[in-house]
Amino acid sequence: MSEHAAVLFANDAFYLAFATRDLEAMDAIWALETPVSCIHPGWEPLLDRDEVMESWEAILTNPSATNVTPKNPTVHVFGEVAYVICSEILDQGFLVATNLFVHEGGQWKIIHHQAGAAPPPEAEEEDENDPGDTIQ
Amino acid sequence: MSEHAAVLFANDAFYLAFATRDLEAMDAIWALETPVSCIHPGWEPLLDRDEVMESWEAILTNPSATNVTPKNPTVHVFGEVAYVICSEILDQGFLVATNLFVHEGGQWKIIHHQAGAAPPPEAEEEDENDPGDTIQ
Repeated sequence: MSEHAAVLFANDAFYLAFATRDLEAMDAIWALETPVSCIHPGWEPLLDRDEVMESWEAILTNPSATNVTPKNPTVHVFGEVAYVICSEILDQGFLVATNLFVHEGGQWKIIHHQAGAAPPPEAEEEDENDPGDTIQ
Repeated sequence: MSEHAAVLFANDAFYLAFATRDLEAMDAIWALETPVSCIHPGWEPLLDRDEVMESWEAILTNPSATNVTPKNPTVHVFGEVAYVICSEILDQGFLVATNLFVHEGGQWKIIHHQAGAAPPPEAEEEDENDPGDTIQ
Protein backbone atom coordinates (compact mmCIF):
# COMPACT_ATOMS: atom_id res chain seq x y z
CA MET A 1 0.00 0.00 0.00
CA SER A 2 1.39 3.43 -0.86
CA GLU A 3 1.83 5.85 2.02
CA HIS A 4 -0.85 8.03 0.44
CA ALA A 5 -3.30 5.12 0.55
CA ALA A 6 -2.19 4.17 4.07
CA VAL A 7 -2.90 7.69 5.34
CA LEU A 8 -6.30 7.65 3.64
CA PHE A 9 -6.96 4.29 5.30
CA ALA A 10 -6.11 5.79 8.71
CA ASN A 11 -8.38 8.75 7.98
CA ASP A 12 -11.20 6.35 7.07
CA ALA A 13 -10.54 4.37 10.26
CA PHE A 14 -10.94 7.57 12.28
CA TYR A 15 -14.32 8.29 10.69
CA LEU A 16 -15.42 4.65 10.97
CA ALA A 17 -14.69 4.74 14.71
CA PHE A 18 -16.66 8.00 14.89
CA ALA A 19 -19.60 6.68 12.83
CA THR A 20 -19.84 3.37 14.71
CA ARG A 21 -19.28 5.07 18.09
CA ASP A 22 -16.46 2.66 18.79
CA LEU A 23 -14.46 4.27 21.56
CA GLU A 24 -11.87 1.49 21.62
CA ALA A 25 -11.18 1.90 17.91
CA MET A 26 -11.10 5.68 18.37
CA ASP A 27 -8.53 5.32 21.13
CA ALA A 28 -6.42 3.00 18.97
CA ILE A 29 -6.26 5.45 16.04
CA TRP A 30 -4.77 8.26 18.19
CA ALA A 31 -0.99 8.31 18.71
CA LEU A 32 0.36 7.07 22.01
CA GLU A 33 4.00 8.20 21.83
CA THR A 34 3.46 11.57 20.18
CA PRO A 35 1.54 14.36 21.95
CA VAL A 36 -1.95 14.79 20.53
CA SER A 37 -4.39 17.67 20.31
CA CYS A 38 -7.95 18.17 19.13
CA ILE A 39 -10.16 21.13 18.30
CA HIS A 40 -13.86 20.29 18.13
CA PRO A 41 -16.11 22.95 16.53
CA GLY A 42 -16.61 25.80 18.98
CA TRP A 43 -14.49 24.16 21.70
CA GLU A 44 -11.26 25.40 23.16
CA PRO A 45 -8.25 23.36 22.02
CA LEU A 46 -7.67 20.11 23.91
CA LEU A 47 -3.91 19.67 24.31
CA ASP A 48 -3.68 16.51 26.39
CA ARG A 49 -4.40 12.89 25.35
CA ASP A 50 -6.64 12.21 28.35
CA GLU A 51 -8.70 15.31 27.60
CA VAL A 52 -8.94 14.35 23.93
CA MET A 53 -10.14 10.83 24.70
CA GLU A 54 -12.60 12.11 27.33
CA SER A 55 -14.05 14.40 24.65
CA TRP A 56 -14.50 11.46 22.29
CA GLU A 57 -16.10 9.41 25.04
CA ALA A 58 -18.57 12.26 25.64
CA ILE A 59 -19.29 12.58 21.92
CA LEU A 60 -19.53 8.88 21.08
CA THR A 61 -21.68 7.92 24.07
CA ASN A 62 -24.11 10.79 23.52
CA PRO A 63 -27.42 9.19 22.48
CA SER A 64 -28.04 12.05 20.08
CA ALA A 65 -24.58 11.86 18.50
CA THR A 66 -24.63 12.80 14.86
CA ASN A 67 -23.80 10.52 11.98
CA VAL A 68 -20.68 11.60 10.13
CA THR A 69 -19.44 10.81 6.65
CA PRO A 70 -16.12 12.09 5.30
CA LYS A 71 -16.06 13.41 1.75
CA ASN A 72 -13.52 14.74 -0.76
CA PRO A 73 -10.33 13.91 1.20
CA THR A 74 -7.05 15.36 0.02
CA VAL A 75 -3.89 13.70 1.37
CA HIS A 76 -0.43 15.23 1.77
CA VAL A 77 2.48 13.07 2.95
CA PHE A 78 5.80 14.47 4.21
CA GLY A 79 7.89 11.47 5.23
CA GLU A 80 6.73 10.51 8.71
CA VAL A 81 4.05 13.22 8.91
CA ALA A 82 0.91 13.58 6.83
CA TYR A 83 -2.29 15.54 6.80
CA VAL A 84 -5.72 15.14 5.29
CA ILE A 85 -8.30 17.81 4.57
CA CYS A 86 -11.83 16.51 4.17
CA SER A 87 -15.42 17.58 4.41
CA GLU A 88 -17.62 16.02 7.07
CA ILE A 89 -21.30 15.48 6.34
CA LEU A 90 -23.30 15.48 9.56
CA ASP A 91 -27.03 15.07 10.19
CA GLN A 92 -27.41 18.77 10.85
CA GLY A 93 -24.90 20.35 8.48
CA PHE A 94 -21.39 20.37 7.20
CA LEU A 95 -17.91 20.69 8.66
CA VAL A 96 -14.46 20.70 7.19
CA ALA A 97 -11.56 19.07 8.99
CA THR A 98 -7.80 19.04 9.12
CA ASN A 99 -6.46 15.69 10.34
CA LEU A 100 -2.76 15.37 11.08
CA PHE A 101 -0.99 12.00 11.28
CA VAL A 102 2.41 10.60 12.24
CA HIS A 103 3.91 7.23 11.43
CA GLU A 104 4.19 5.52 14.80
CA GLY A 105 4.85 1.82 15.43
CA GLY A 106 4.48 1.01 11.74
CA GLN A 107 1.05 2.62 11.46
CA TRP A 108 -0.32 6.05 10.72
CA LYS A 109 -1.80 7.51 13.90
CA ILE A 110 -3.76 10.73 14.25
CA ILE A 111 -2.10 13.44 16.34
CA HIS A 112 -4.38 16.41 15.65
CA HIS A 113 -7.92 17.03 14.46
CA GLN A 114 -9.63 20.36 13.88
CA ALA A 115 -13.16 20.60 12.52
CA GLY A 116 -15.11 23.76 11.84
CA ALA A 117 -18.26 24.97 10.13
CA ALA A 118 -18.27 24.90 6.33
CA PRO A 119 -20.62 25.31 3.41
CA PRO A 120 -21.90 22.14 1.70
CA PRO A 121 -18.99 20.31 0.04
CA GLU A 122 -18.76 20.35 -3.71
CA ALA A 123 -20.95 17.62 -5.16
CA GLU A 124 -19.42 14.63 -6.87
CA GLU A 125 -20.67 13.70 -10.32
CA GLU A 126 -23.47 11.40 -9.23
CA ASP A 127 -25.23 13.95 -7.05
CA GLU A 128 -24.53 17.10 -8.99
CA ASN A 129 -28.18 17.38 -9.94
CA ASP A 130 -29.77 16.93 -6.55
CA PRO A 131 -27.61 18.57 -3.91
CA GLY A 132 -30.76 19.82 -2.18
CA ASP A 133 -31.88 16.32 -1.28
CA THR A 134 -29.27 15.88 1.38
CA ILE A 135 -29.14 19.49 2.51
CA GLN A 136 -32.75 20.14 3.44
CA MET B 1 17.58 29.80 17.30
CA SER B 2 15.97 26.47 18.18
CA GLU B 3 13.57 25.00 15.63
CA HIS B 4 10.79 25.50 18.16
CA ALA B 5 11.59 29.21 18.33
CA ALA B 6 12.00 29.42 14.55
CA VAL B 7 8.53 27.94 14.01
CA LEU B 8 7.07 30.36 16.53
CA PHE B 9 8.83 33.18 14.68
CA ALA B 10 7.23 32.04 11.41
CA ASN B 11 3.84 31.86 13.11
CA ASP B 12 4.31 35.39 14.42
CA ALA B 13 5.34 36.54 10.94
CA PHE B 14 2.10 35.14 9.56
CA TYR B 15 0.02 37.08 12.09
CA LEU B 16 2.13 40.22 11.64
CA ALA B 17 1.46 40.12 7.89
CA PHE B 18 -2.24 39.64 8.67
CA ALA B 19 -2.36 42.44 11.25
CA THR B 20 -0.46 44.94 9.10
CA ARG B 21 -2.37 43.89 5.95
CA ASP B 22 0.95 43.33 4.21
CA LEU B 23 0.09 41.15 1.23
CA GLU B 24 3.72 40.89 0.11
CA ALA B 25 4.80 39.59 3.51
CA MET B 26 1.81 37.25 3.55
CA ASP B 27 2.81 35.86 0.18
CA ALA B 28 6.40 35.39 1.36
CA ILE B 29 5.41 33.36 4.42
CA TRP B 30 3.51 30.76 2.35
CA ALA B 31 5.51 27.88 0.83
CA LEU B 32 6.36 28.04 -2.85
CA GLU B 33 7.62 24.52 -3.54
CA THR B 34 5.16 22.61 -1.36
CA PRO B 35 1.42 22.58 -2.13
CA VAL B 36 -0.55 24.81 0.22
CA SER B 37 -4.11 24.87 1.48
CA CYS B 38 -6.23 27.15 3.63
CA ILE B 39 -9.57 26.90 5.42
CA HIS B 40 -11.00 30.25 6.47
CA PRO B 41 -13.90 30.12 8.97
CA GLY B 42 -17.05 29.04 7.13
CA TRP B 43 -15.31 28.81 3.75
CA GLU B 44 -14.81 25.75 1.65
CA PRO B 45 -11.20 24.55 1.66
CA LEU B 46 -8.86 26.36 -0.74
CA LEU B 47 -6.47 23.80 -2.20
CA ASP B 48 -4.46 25.87 -4.65
CA ARG B 49 -1.81 28.53 -3.95
CA ASP B 50 -3.37 31.07 -6.31
CA GLU B 51 -6.76 30.63 -4.62
CA VAL B 52 -5.16 30.92 -1.18
CA MET B 53 -3.35 34.15 -2.06
CA GLU B 54 -6.46 35.60 -3.72
CA SER B 55 -8.32 34.93 -0.48
CA TRP B 56 -5.68 36.79 1.51
CA GLU B 57 -5.77 39.66 -0.96
CA ALA B 58 -9.55 39.89 -0.48
CA ILE B 59 -9.19 39.74 3.31
CA LEU B 60 -6.24 42.12 3.68
CA THR B 61 -7.57 44.76 1.29
CA ASN B 62 -11.03 44.76 2.86
CA PRO B 63 -11.42 48.19 4.51
CA SER B 64 -13.32 46.57 7.37
CA ALA B 65 -10.74 43.83 7.90
CA THR B 66 -10.50 42.79 11.52
CA ASN B 67 -7.50 43.19 13.73
CA VAL B 68 -6.03 39.86 14.79
CA THR B 69 -3.76 38.92 17.66
CA PRO B 70 -2.44 35.39 18.23
CA LYS B 71 -2.48 34.05 21.77
CA ASN B 72 -1.36 30.91 23.65
CA PRO B 73 0.58 29.25 20.81
CA THR B 74 1.68 25.65 21.22
CA VAL B 75 4.39 24.44 18.86
CA HIS B 76 5.10 20.87 17.74
CA VAL B 77 8.11 20.14 15.54
CA PHE B 78 8.62 16.86 13.62
CA GLY B 79 11.85 17.26 11.69
CA GLU B 80 10.97 19.21 8.54
CA VAL B 81 7.29 19.62 9.46
CA ALA B 82 5.76 21.54 12.34
CA TYR B 83 2.41 22.79 13.50
CA VAL B 84 1.16 25.48 15.80
CA ILE B 85 -2.18 25.70 17.55
CA CYS B 86 -3.10 29.18 18.71
CA SER B 87 -6.06 31.32 19.60
CA GLU B 88 -6.84 34.34 17.46
CA ILE B 89 -8.34 37.41 19.08
CA LEU B 90 -10.38 39.39 16.56
CA ASP B 91 -12.38 42.60 16.90
CA GLN B 92 -15.62 40.67 16.89
CA GLY B 93 -14.74 37.46 18.68
CA PHE B 94 -12.39 34.55 18.94
CA LEU B 95 -11.06 31.87 16.65
CA VAL B 96 -8.67 29.00 17.12
CA ALA B 97 -6.23 28.02 14.40
CA THR B 98 -4.09 25.16 13.24
CA ASN B 99 -1.06 26.37 11.28
CA LEU B 100 1.12 23.82 9.52
CA PHE B 101 4.68 24.58 8.39
CA VAL B 102 7.45 22.96 6.37
CA HIS B 103 11.13 23.78 6.29
CA GLU B 104 11.72 25.09 2.78
CA GLY B 105 14.77 26.94 1.52
CA GLY B 106 16.19 27.27 5.02
CA GLN B 107 13.04 28.86 6.43
CA TRP B 108 9.80 27.69 7.97
CA LYS B 109 6.96 28.35 5.54
CA ILE B 110 3.27 27.90 6.15
CA ILE B 111 1.54 25.21 4.08
CA HIS B 112 -1.87 25.03 5.75
CA HIS B 113 -4.07 27.21 7.92
CA GLN B 114 -7.45 26.39 9.39
CA ALA B 115 -9.29 28.78 11.67
CA GLY B 116 -12.67 28.23 13.27
CA ALA B 117 -14.96 29.67 15.92
CA ALA B 118 -13.86 29.21 19.51
CA PRO B 119 -14.72 30.38 23.01
CA PRO B 120 -12.56 33.10 24.56
CA PRO B 121 -9.03 31.77 25.09
CA GLU B 122 -7.91 31.05 28.61
CA ALA B 123 -6.66 34.26 30.19
CA GLU B 124 -3.00 34.71 30.99
CA GLU B 125 -2.07 35.81 34.48
CA GLU B 126 -2.12 39.52 33.82
CA ASP B 127 -5.65 39.67 32.49
CA GLU B 128 -7.29 36.98 34.60
CA ASN B 129 -9.33 39.58 36.44
CA ASP B 130 -10.70 41.51 33.50
CA PRO B 131 -11.46 39.13 30.65
CA GLY B 132 -14.70 41.01 29.99
CA ASP B 133 -12.90 44.18 28.95
CA THR B 134 -11.85 42.81 25.60
CA ILE B 135 -14.92 40.66 25.00
CA GLN B 136 -17.73 43.21 25.18
